[in-house]
Amino acid sequence: MSLAIGIDLGGTAIKGGIVSSKGEILHRTSIDTHASEGVDAVIDRMAGLARTLADHAAHRHEPPLGIGVGSPGMIRQRDGVILSSPNLDGWRDVPLVAKLGAKLNWPITLNNDANNAALGEFRCGAGIGRRNFIMLTLGTGVGGGIIANGKLYVGSRGNAGELGHTIVHPDGRRCGCGQSGCLEAYASAPATAQRAVDALESGQESVLRAKQNGHGQLTSADIVAAAQPGDSVAQHVWMESCKYLAIACVNFQHVFDPDCIAFAGGMSEAGQYLIDGVNLQVAKFFSTNFGTPPAIMLAKLGSDAGLVGAAMSAFEE
Amino acid sequence: MSLAIGIDLGGTAIKGGIVSSKGEILHRTSIDTHASEGVDAVIDRMAGLARTLADHAAHRHEPPLGIGVGSPGMIRQRDGVILSSPNLDGWRDVPLVAKLGAKLNWPITLNNDANNAALGEFRCGAGIGRRNFIMLTLGTGVGGGIIANGKLYVGSRGNAGELGHTIVHPDGRRCGCGQSGCLEAYASAPATAQRAVDALESGQESVLRAKQNGHGQLTSADIVAAAQPGDSVAQHVWMESCKYLAIACVNFQHVFDPDCIAFAGGMSEAGQYLIDGVNLQVAKFFSTNFGTPPAIMLAKLGSDAGLVGAAMSAFEE
Repeated sequence: MSLAIGIDLGGTAIKGGIVSSKGEILHRTSIDTHASEGVDAVIDRMAGLARTLADHAAHRHEPPLGIGVGSPGMIRQRDGVILSSPNLDGWRDVPLVAKLGAKLNWPITLNNDANNAALGEFRCGAGIGRRNFIMLTLGTGVGGGIIANGKLYVGSRGNAGELGHTIVHPDGRRCGCGQSGCLEAYASAPATAQRAVDALESGQESVLRAKQNGHGQLTSADIVAAAQPGDSVAQHVWMESCKYLAIACVNFQHVFDPDCIAFAGGMSEAGQYLIDGVNLQVAKFFSTNFGTPPAIMLAKLGSDAGLVGAAMSAFEE
Repeated sequence: MSLAIGIDLGGTAIKGGIVSSKGEILHRTSIDTHASEGVDAVIDRMAGLARTLADHAAHRHEPPLGIGVGSPGMIRQRDGVILSSPNLDGWRDVPLVAKLGAKLNWPITLNNDANNAALGEFRCGAGIGRRNFIMLTLGTGVGGGIIANGKLYVGSRGNAGELGHTIVHPDGRRCGCGQSGCLEAYASAPATAQRAVDALESGQESVLRAKQNGHGQLTSADIVAAAQPGDSVAQHVWMESCKYLAIACVNFQHVFDPDCIAFAGGMSEAGQYLIDGVNLQVAKFFSTNFGTPPAIMLAKLGSDAGLVGAAMSAFEE
């Protein structure tokens, strides 16, 4: 059984795992990122993490074939550079693969973290048996990944699949990325919660008022919990998230003609309630002149998708 | 030099050509479609056209390797079926490849016509030397095609690249496809002209009024001709087309990270005026946090792209 090391570099934690070619995580570990200590300190810790994981693999008499790294933000895949990352303050043009490669003796593959998550889900989760597969990770942001003809599609520089920053409402809500009207500005967990807070601030009555924390905040889980039994403010907000997800899915159907589109991330914990809401909205936006509407489903790997996908990217090399 | 037969099946004409592997059209011919005579009569004429072209190839002592066919509408590529086509009235579930194959002794490949146009432009025009390439054909409708990692991407059924039916304005203008707010409903030639007619009907003053034909109609070329010297109604209408094209290009940049996006079709005859207008609008919608904006250019093959691409698809098989 072949093994690879997967590393998921996040703003607060670096997750690592020894992963089999079937996607089993045989050993996992996690350390704090401490991004404020600077690029070299973080890369030192990543190298240490990789060595620890390799030791575990050695105990199984199966040296890892390579290392796959997932990073948030914009990359240049050709030479493994992280160009910028909103979650890694001050990281600009960091030659991650070169720096990490100088410390370690394995081939290293760098991908965007959401692309890796899609690859993991494709190989080992909701995408098994599919050929063309789209995944949307609906968390703090909205990440995306594209599998085209059975392979992760990363585009010319490595930044394809930024599906959360497709514009679904021109002149719409401001997104953290600097654009307006991005899918992320409507369908991320914080964007969904924020619209409910806005509704409360405008004076609308809702059971959500009692759920606000000391700072007046809500979570997307609060919205779901209130919407399901019938709170009208929560239902309106939730349906708006579903509407923009539906528009995005209709667009991805026309663009990719995929086998299916999977939802992952915190918002997808609403389960069938999310799928039903999006399908209801798809019916309003998709013309059946184009045949069957997009097949929308839930992802299966949960928060492991990025780690599994990072390792899968090492196997693909 | 290898040769293939390209056939571009349209609502009014069937165009055919003998095409070299370099994309040279060595001989071409065109016949009326007469779609009203029914499926079998049209397919008979297509077979006759192919035989005529093959005779021309035989005179060069170079039998064609195969036939590539481009069709408007929805297809099922796996078994070469035209599912439906707005331009071929009454064509439903037509097993084109089986029926044509029963009359001819060459392998036959069926693609959507706009996908073929993108393939032709990729291999022999604006896409030469690129790896990831998007083309938008801005004509009576808005067609699209995607080249991913050097190959035409057609999706799971063969209907990927319907870029003109991505929704760029939720709850926007009605599109002929049955959806609302499609790119085609804003950036096709007739959609552009119609918005100017609407502006005149609402009483706005413009030099365009003198250009209306007996039915009160305009063309997109009229809009360009009036906008360039400064007619404000024409400029507003033109800039709105550019705006929605820009939103689409921003979205395709995020989705595909392509080398470039090329514009073809009647609207692209505005040349640099179109490119400048779209780039101006891209600057409003695209965040430079994502790096360089989409590279937008003009296609080079003109109305030959579909025919050349049809033949290229035969070479790819």
